[in-house]
Amino acid sequence: MATLGDIGLSAFINILSAFAFLLAFALLRIQPINDRVYFPKWYISGKRSSPRNLGNVVGKFVNLNFKTYVTFLNWMPQALKMSESEIISHAGLDSAVFLRIYILGLKIFGPIAVAALLVLIPVNAHGGTLFFLQRELVVSNIDKLSISNIRPKSYKFFFHISMEYLFTFWVCYMLYKEYKRVASMRLNFLASKGRHPEQFTVLVRGVPHVSGRSVSDSVETFFRRNHPDHYLCNQAVYKANKFAKLVKKRNQLQNWLDYNQLKFERYPNKRPTIRRGFLGLWGERVDSIDFYNEQIKDLDKKLTMERQKILKEPKAVTRAAFVSFNSRWGAAVCAQTQQSKNPTLWLTKWAPEPRDIYWKNLAIPFLSLTMRKLVISILVFALVFFYMIPIAFVQSLANLEGLERVALFLRPLIELNFVKSFIQGFLPGLALKIFLHLLPKLLMVMSKIEGHVAISILERRTAAKYYYFMLVNVFLGSIVTGTAFQQLDAFLHQSATQIPRNVGVSIPMKATFFITYIMVDGWAGIAGEILRLKCLVVFHLKHMFIVKTERDLEKAMDPGSIKFPETLPSLQLYFLLGIVYMVVTPILLPFILVFFAFAYFVYRHQVINVYNQKYESAAAFWPHVHGRIIASLLISQMLLMGLLSTKKAASSTPLLVVLPILTLTFHKYCKNRFEPAFRKYPLEEAVNKDTQHRASESNADLKSYLSDAYLHPIFHSFEDVDLAEVRVDKNEAYAPSTSQGAISSPSSPQYAYQHEDGPSHDTRHYGVEPTGNNMYSYDVESQHH
Amino acid sequence: MATLGDIGLSAFINILSAFAFLLAFALLRIQPINDRVYFPKWYISGKRSSPRNLGNVVGKFVNLNFKTYVTFLNWMPQALKMSESEIISHAGLDSAVFLRIYILGLKIFGPIAVAALLVLIPVNAHGGTLFFLQRELVVSNIDKLSISNIRPKSYKFFFHISMEYLFTFWVCYMLYKEYKRVASMRLNFLASKGRHPEQFTVLVRGVPHVSGRSVSDSVETFFRRNHPDHYLCNQAVYKANKFAKLVKKRNQLQNWLDYNQLKFERYPNKRPTIRRGFLGLWGERVDSIDFYNEQIKDLDKKLTMERQKILKEPKAVTRAAFVSFNSRWGAAVCAQTQQSKNPTLWLTKWAPEPRDIYWKNLAIPFLSLTMRKLVISILVFALVFFYMIPIAFVQSLANLEGLERVALFLRPLIELNFVKSFIQGFLPGLALKIFLHLLPKLLMVMSKIEGHVAISILERRTAAKYYYFMLVNVFLGSIVTGTAFQQLDAFLHQSATQIPRNVGVSIPMKATFFITYIMVDGWAGIAGEILRLKCLVVFHLKHMFIVKTERDLEKAMDPGSIKFPETLPSLQLYFLLGIVYMVVTPILLPFILVFFAFAYFVYRHQVINVYNQKYESAAAFWPHVHGRIIASLLISQMLLMGLLSTKKAASSTPLLVVLPILTLTFHKYCKNRFEPAFRKYPLEEAVNKDTQHRASESNADLKSYLSDAYLHPIFHSFEDVDLAEVRVDKNEAYAPSTSQGAISSPSSPQYAYQHEDGPSHDTRHYGVEPTGNNMYSYDVESQHH
Repeated sequence: MATLGDIGLSAFINILSAFAFLLAFALLRIQPINDRVYFPKWYISGKRSSPRNLGNVVGKFVNLNFKTYVTFLNWMPQALKMSESEIISHAGLDSAVFLRIYILGLKIFGPIAVAALLVLIPVNAHGGTLFFLQRELVVSNIDKLSISNIRPKSYKFFFHISMEYLFTFWVCYMLYKEYKRVASMRLNFLASKGRHPEQFTVLVRGVPHVSGRSVSDSVETFFRRNHPDHYLCNQAVYKANKFAKLVKKRNQLQNWLDYNQLKFERYPNKRPTIRRGFLGLWGERVDSIDFYNEQIKDLDKKLTMERQKILKEPKAVTRAAFVSFNSRWGAAVCAQTQQSKNPTLWLTKWAPEPRDIYWKNLAIPFLSLTMRKLVISILVFALVFFYMIPIAFVQSLANLEGLERVALFLRPLIELNFVKSFIQGFLPGLALKIFLHLLPKLLMVMSKIEGHVAISILERRTAAKYYYFMLVNVFLGSIVTGTAFQQLDAFLHQSATQIPRNVGVSIPMKATFFITYIMVDGWAGIAGEILRLKCLVVFHLKHMFIVKTERDLEKAMDPGSIKFPETLPSLQLYFLLGIVYMVVTPILLPFILVFFAFAYFVYRHQVINVYNQKYESAAAFWPHVHGRIIASLLISQMLLMGLLSTKKAASSTPLLVVLPILTLTFHKYCKNRFEPAFRKYPLEEAVNKDTQHRASESNADLKSYLSDAYLHPIFHSFEDVDLAEVRVDKNEAYAPSTSQGAISSPSSPQYAYQHEDGPSHDTRHYGVEPTGNNMYSYDVESQHH
Repeated sequence: MATLGDIGLSAFINILSAFAFLLAFALLRIQPINDRVYFPKWYISGKRSSPRNLGNVVGKFVNLNFKTYVTFLNWMPQALKMSESEIISHAGLDSAVFLRIYILGLKIFGPIAVAALLVLIPVNAHGGTLFFLQRELVVSNIDKLSISNIRPKSYKFFFHISMEYLFTFWVCYMLYKEYKRVASMRLNFLASKGRHPEQFTVLVRGVPHVSGRSVSDSVETFFRRNHPDHYLCNQAVYKANKFAKLVKKRNQLQNWLDYNQLKFERYPNKRPTIRRGFLGLWGERVDSIDFYNEQIKDLDKKLTMERQKILKEPKAVTRAAFVSFNSRWGAAVCAQTQQSKNPTLWLTKWAPEPRDIYWKNLAIPFLSLTMRKLVISILVFALVFFYMIPIAFVQSLANLEGLERVALFLRPLIELNFVKSFIQGFLPGLALKIFLHLLPKLLMVMSKIEGHVAISILERRTAAKYYYFMLVNVFLGSIVTGTAFQQLDAFLHQSATQIPRNVGVSIPMKATFFITYIMVDGWAGIAGEILRLKCLVVFHLKHMFIVKTERDLEKAMDPGSIKFPETLPSLQLYFLLGIVYMVVTPILLPFILVFFAFAYFVYRHQVINVYNQKYESAAAFWPHVHGRIIASLLISQMLLMGLLSTKKAASSTPLLVVLPILTLTFHKYCKNRFEPAFRKYPLEEAVNKDTQHRASESNADLKSYLSDAYLHPIFHSFEDVDLAEVRVDKNEAYAPSTSQGAISSPSSPQYAYQHEDGPSHDTRHYGVEPTGNNMYSYDVESQHH
């Protein structure tokens, strides 16, 4: 077991590596060449279009202003300068509330750490049992400061019990205040928002099939009848995966065309050429600009045909639609009420933001949703408890005998000593590493299969799954020996009172492990986050090899966003560690405090300068954060009860039984009191906003505003193609260049399907830019053209 | 353990007593004198006003028509004659659906019994272990037909597992069909209902306090603002418990006055007199009619003062109100949406029927509700698991030493042998009996403290509590030895897999006990229900001693109603027994089938001829019935798993694990698919009904209709007093008799507070008769005057 010296060494190493990361970051960020890696948010918000120093050719790439090197650590105070309201308008409420979680951590654990260090450490340290045991057992110094050091049956446990009470009340008080604040922030944010299409729109699923009638017709009739004074219009949802692929291809061609035209402009005497064959490697050499124009024209024809197919084919229309109302009140009413006798038909819920919609899942029928949820729950359970089985299988394949059997020709290679040791020592670990790296993506795929209709919900569901995984495999897995499956089996064969006892008794012994974990994952890991090493390398590689046009440069920038599916669960794990150890081994708390403070700085900087959120859910994740901190409290209370019962302090256990009941009651109260603010939209608010905006919003105006907002992305490109066709008819001669001009002009950014950041996210890009208004300014292309 | 012979004897005794009850019933019911005991429903519905045979004086009391004695068992076919739709219009949907539960029992267990008897009994009986053990253990013949007879590790268990699957699917299929049917019956019932005030009215709670503004004002402003097109009017809720007491007293006096006037009319030459003193036993002798008139006049003055006090005192107005809308659509919208930013204010839900409201609980604030629920849950938990403790305490007090110590003067009496054996043998049992008799009332009081606002909800919550009690103390308590508390302690110290094993293994052994239980409680008990012995005796006693006026006779009738808090849980217990034993000891099933069939006959007769429901919840209890049958399935699966694991058929257990998951999924699906029909009111339906009735319902008409419907009962009496006062002013001389005439006339049945049927129900009678319409025809007085 680790001594205080070991911990100190580990702390030193981790602090050193954190500082190395920070130093590297501080030096790299002031180089103009890296400007788009470390300040992309400013490019996106339009406040910066090129690096600040543009002295000479060298100055374009390397910072020559030596004064900035002296003040290279000034990003920290800079990051603190922005006020919360500025952050909300700069980066959105999601980011602002995300930062508040770190502050909440500091607020919760700061006073607790002080109280615990002042009261519990002396109580634990003074004349405990472990001093006498030292010779027989290997006991760490950390343990002498923990509850393990108290003699069984000691009256001192009442200190711990009363502290558990005190701390629980403190945590609940802070949680209550924070929930209240976040709820009111959310309502204010929604109230101060301008006119947005999602305020007027409801997503309707389960439109029943009526023969001889289109979905749009059914929807129109139904809502005209049941919301006669409020219904405005509806938009059908199309199944358009094939069309989206064509659009993507067209986009790539457009990009090549731009590149070639740029080239031609620079060297007007040499027209660029290309070979017709595969990847331009062989075949007849032709004029590039003509070639691409021709290809685009071909594709446009295909697109038109596909469009007509979709329009004619009634099966291409899904049984879902976006229904818009003429007031926020009307939409709020429709979203919150049951429409039909059969509650699996005409299901209404608030439409997500247009850019937040996950179009693929809109068409899933009700029964299928139930089945999907069941299957995915079973799969997640299996993944959490049995994930080691497939990995062990892969690892067994990756061993030498397996490989030799599968691939005989590799035998001479494998027999080399170096390769042998590499495979034996490295591959099994690599398999696990790859799995853990892929895990969030795998969980995201599972969430998608579950059938949620918004990216924000998908990310929240993924975060929940990831949390369960961490809870079982990182927290419990580190405390109890054996794989998760073995634990599950053991738990099933233990009594309800035995489980917390068995887990609780090993809790204090694992404190040193978790301290090291916090330093590695929390301290050095967060410092690595600010360095953005992967993004830096990828950006420069892309810059050197792929970037052909200005558009590509924008795309290569990749600001990223707060990865909620990963950051929220790991944050919640830190809360869990802090709350479980606050009474047991309070020496762990300062390490957590350092994590919260440091991570707050780093993420504040990233939110201000780097991240560009893809959607705005108005802090819809907060109830989950709150709920999991409450769960941590309950786990902590159970484990303390188990721990105390092994200390023969059984008479004190009943004193603790009241605490979970009180905690649960508090949770229930908070749920009733605040959660509706995150799930429903009060009519009072809707009426207020309606009255405010009544003067400026006429009905006709609203209808034209809403008619585009939830248009399936497919239709935006249709309009353009129509435009192009019309022009072709009129001026036959200029057809190609006009069509192309119309498509790539800044006012029609609809072919914006190329902005990618991961294989699993491609469908997100069907998200629409509402023509004619700039509210959804998330897509890089439309901004900088 | 009981042999087949014992069971046969028990069956014989129970069948005999059931037949005795039935015979007594058949003879008693055709006596004219008992007509109001056995056919009160017909008197209430106005289709009968006096017994059928009115030949001579004797014929008035005893049936002299001997033909009817021959056909005295014809009530059974008669009970079946009425069709379901007739029952719905005759007794309401609650009763009709309640009867369907018995049919559901027959539908579920009929085929299961056939399949189990044909397949499982031969499998169990053939060459089992128990034949060899017979000499060593006392094994009943019943056990030879049960799963206990199968040798460990036998392949035969696959019969049982596949049967469990088959039966589960069958039960789920029947449940699905039934839920679907009941949901559509409910919707049809609501759709076919005429204009009722609860269709337009929403109960608003948590009206915030605004200084200098009345509650009614606040409500008016808020709803005018947030439901501008739909708001119609609102009605305040008053705290009026003291006033209600005065009204009750006045009612009694009125009754005495009626009695004396009747007397005077009969013997006009002798004016009735009364003594002024206590209970009319001593004091000055005065004229009764004058005396009561004077007393009523006094009380009227007091009532006026109290009224003015309530009207002037703003604290007498609670923070709740009934808000009415001008369309069903508007009310449906308001009931289903969130009104305010703060979800603990302006809480809206559908108003219950006026006669269903439990007025006392309307004023409870939100925070208090949370606390009440917590406290009551803890109390119910304590009651279920620790109820033996106070009873043991009382029993220990009731023993001889205790009594002698407390009451020395009783010693000579106690020393008598007869008294001694009585106290020792009878009193402890009596304490338990009294407790079990009082239990439903105690649970009802608990539900009232929980703060539900409708009697129907109170009864459902009481039924739920009673079910938990029965589940733990009757079902588990009979299977596992020891008190519930000891079981709880044992369960806490057993592993999750051990509990079903321990319970499961004793399941087959208790089959004989439950068979006897079914015969005693189910067969003979139900036959006792139809005899209505208690009501018969009470009616005749009242008739002899108390009944003074026609009104009293009506009251003495006491039709009662289906006691949902007791009948539903015991029904659910029968389902539990049937489902648990269907695979383990299928010989139990025929006994349950007899219970369902017989109880169906009896309750059908009672519903048609006797019961008079006090409210109509449109089968709102169905989701609970459904849910508890699902819970029974889960319990059965768990116990079978536990049982099989003791039979060393461990390899078969995984086969059963899938079943609970499937059952839960089915439950979830049903919940999503059907439960909204019981919780919400679809807008489609509201619009349909609005359109239907638009022609006949003008807004002004509606307003006057609704303005009275949810008037606090206090106001109805005010109006009368006002009327009386006005008349006094006009015709001083005739004042007393006019006032009295106005009050007891059929058109103003507002002083109808006396109709009682239990001490815990008194507040229910604040329920209002909406003046001017006869829809709420539940109150005896208003119908037959």
